[in-house]
Amino acid sequence: MQKVHPTSQDAGEALHLCLKVMQRMPRLQWSIEQYIQGIRAGDRVALGRAITLIESTRPDHQRLAQQLLQQLSAEKPNHQTLRIAVTGAPGVGKSSFIEALGLHLVAQNLRIAVLAIDPSSAVSGGSILGDKTRMERLSMSENVFIRPSPSGGSLGGVARSTRETIHLVEAAGYPIVLIETVGVGQSEIAVRHITDIFLLLLLPGAGDELQGIKRGIVEMADLLIVNKADGERLALAHQAQTYYRNAVRLLPPHPSGWAPRVLACSSAEGTGIPEVWTSIQECVQQFQATHYFAAQRQQQALYWLRETIEETLRRGFYHHPCVQKVLPSLEAEVAAGRISPFDAAEQVLTKYYAEAGLQRN
Amino acid sequence: MQKVHPTSQDAGEALHLCLKVMQRMPRLQWSIEQYIQGIRAGDRVALGRAITLIESTRPDHQRLAQQLLQQLSAEKPNHQTLRIAVTGAPGVGKSSFIEALGLHLVAQNLRIAVLAIDPSSAVSGGSILGDKTRMERLSMSENVFIRPSPSGGSLGGVARSTRETIHLVEAAGYPIVLIETVGVGQSEIAVRHITDIFLLLLLPGAGDELQGIKRGIVEMADLLIVNKADGERLALAHQAQTYYRNAVRLLPPHPSGWAPRVLACSSAEGTGIPEVWTSIQECVQQFQATHYFAAQRQQQALYWLRETIEETLRRGFYHHPCVQKVLPSLEAEVAAGRISPFDAAEQVLTKYYAEAGLQRN
Repeated sequence: MQKVHPTSQDAGEALHLCLKVMQRMPRLQWSIEQYIQGIRAGDRVALGRAITLIESTRPDHQRLAQQLLQQLSAEKPNHQTLRIAVTGAPGVGKSSFIEALGLHLVAQNLRIAVLAIDPSSAVSGGSILGDKTRMERLSMSENVFIRPSPSGGSLGGVARSTRETIHLVEAAGYPIVLIETVGVGQSEIAVRHITDIFLLLLLPGAGDELQGIKRGIVEMADLLIVNKADGERLALAHQAQTYYRNAVRLLPPHPSGWAPRVLACSSAEGTGIPEVWTSIQECVQQFQATHYFAAQRQQQALYWLRETIEETLRRGFYHHPCVQKVLPSLEAEVAAGRISPFDAAEQVLTKYYAEAGLQRN
Repeated sequence: MQKVHPTSQDAGEALHLCLKVMQRMPRLQWSIEQYIQGIRAGDRVALGRAITLIESTRPDHQRLAQQLLQQLSAEKPNHQTLRIAVTGAPGVGKSSFIEALGLHLVAQNLRIAVLAIDPSSAVSGGSILGDKTRMERLSMSENVFIRPSPSGGSLGGVARSTRETIHLVEAAGYPIVLIETVGVGQSEIAVRHITDIFLLLLLPGAGDELQGIKRGIVEMADLLIVNKADGERLALAHQAQTYYRNAVRLLPPHPSGWAPRVLACSSAEGTGIPEVWTSIQECVQQFQATHYFAAQRQQQALYWLRETIEETLRRGFYHHPCVQKVLPSLEAEVAAGRISPFDAAEQVLTKYYAEAGLQRN
């Protein structure tokens, strides 16, 4: 049989065909059933596409996403899942910690998902996965699903798509979800409301680096973990541990009776990681024994109901043309002390309710 | 001249006449000018009546109160005034501390007003003044005006009437206003937003009593003051000081560069009180030198503008008949995990905007 050598023209035609197929691909809309089948079969492409659906702002995508979430959650209760927040100031080593903890879990045949809240991913399409040095070993495991989660912009925005993504990956058979925050402020508060357990990573030492932690974050932590406790930094790590043990002792007691622990570990050397996992499990046991675990999840759901309602009310008000017209000058008057804030509020609200045709009660 | 002995019938008639006069008194409505004249002349009755006007929920009283506040604030800027929050768990000795600090200020010819946020005063008409053992010596001074401030019920409610009362007493010539909270939670947060300086009183020792302090309160304090540092408790007081000095060192730096101080005093013996006043003055100097003082007041005014707007929007929504009809069952569905909080929010918001005739944007 004679061998046929493809010409450059053949290659050109093949490429053209390929491009035509690819151009048509986005138009192929999957049905709910296709998504559900794929997700249940552990198909990462289906899971990825479903998450993209959740993150989309297109109304038809949103409707499909809601139907998908409802069918999945109706079929599979998620009481056996665990959602862990991993927070800490930039540079504390959150990704390397997640890699170390993740490998420890994978070695025990546990399947985990990692959602990294990434403020840049909305623009760049996911800088975290782009950075190949991050979680390199972990991302090669078959039992691990890693995905950046766009921060959207508003507080509720972050949490909404991330919260719904958690439900998806749980339904796809990842019972442990680690949520990594960017560590620059408000995202921690949103993440506290979508997770069961809150880890705060710290650097060795007890000086300047503490200033990277925003107010109120230490109080939210169930476990405080001094990372990079290795080599020359071992003494400084113990110093930080003592420091934070004193600090958390000052906090009011947790409703579950759990006393926050201060641990040390080295993500680079893997030391202290098994102890972190043991403490996480003991914390969960305490939460479950006191029924705090289920109560917290219920409170979180009701919190998001209220938050979504109130964010919509605020948006409806602040984006209304009549409000945008009068509010800036009223704010200037209030800032200058010329009128009282209550009087200014009354003025703009009267206008809003009148122009929007809303009955005030 | 013959002496006339009044009979019991005379007394009865006098009493009757007296009651008739008193019954008519509430109908006498003062004009704005009468209020302003009285307040400027330092008439406590006029000041008291004006505060009652502010606290009233009657629309005509509210209108009059707003006019009064506007005229007063237009005439007299309040840059030279100082608003101090005095907080701490129940039993820490807030009233006796205010008495001791107040007497120290009065001795320096300073005029002070004390507003005590009192959750019971709406019901009892002011339990704090009823309790004669509280601030007994201070209340006898001519340079002191003491008044309970009803807590109203809602967070915004407390702060609104108290904030407006601050403006009134400042206009009436009390440049220093001490605001005492009840120390049971949310009132501290509201009070933080109406004061320049935040004092947190603590008990000696470093054990159980710490648990009376709600989360986030220590972080708001500019000065932490261990009260009751006398007699046998002196050693315990120093222990508490050391403890809290470590704790506040962990806090992120204050925008003004002010580092919170931990002092000790005895309100009973008067020791440490002059040092508290010196620290308050140094804190104010630091706030003013960095322009934080004025910036904070401006931020507070804008905060109350937003808070008032958003509270009104929330009230309008949650009190709407159609919302009250459908929300409880949706909440139950969300709590049971049968529908997502976002889906429930969408359902109730769609109903609300449709029935209220409001355009959604």
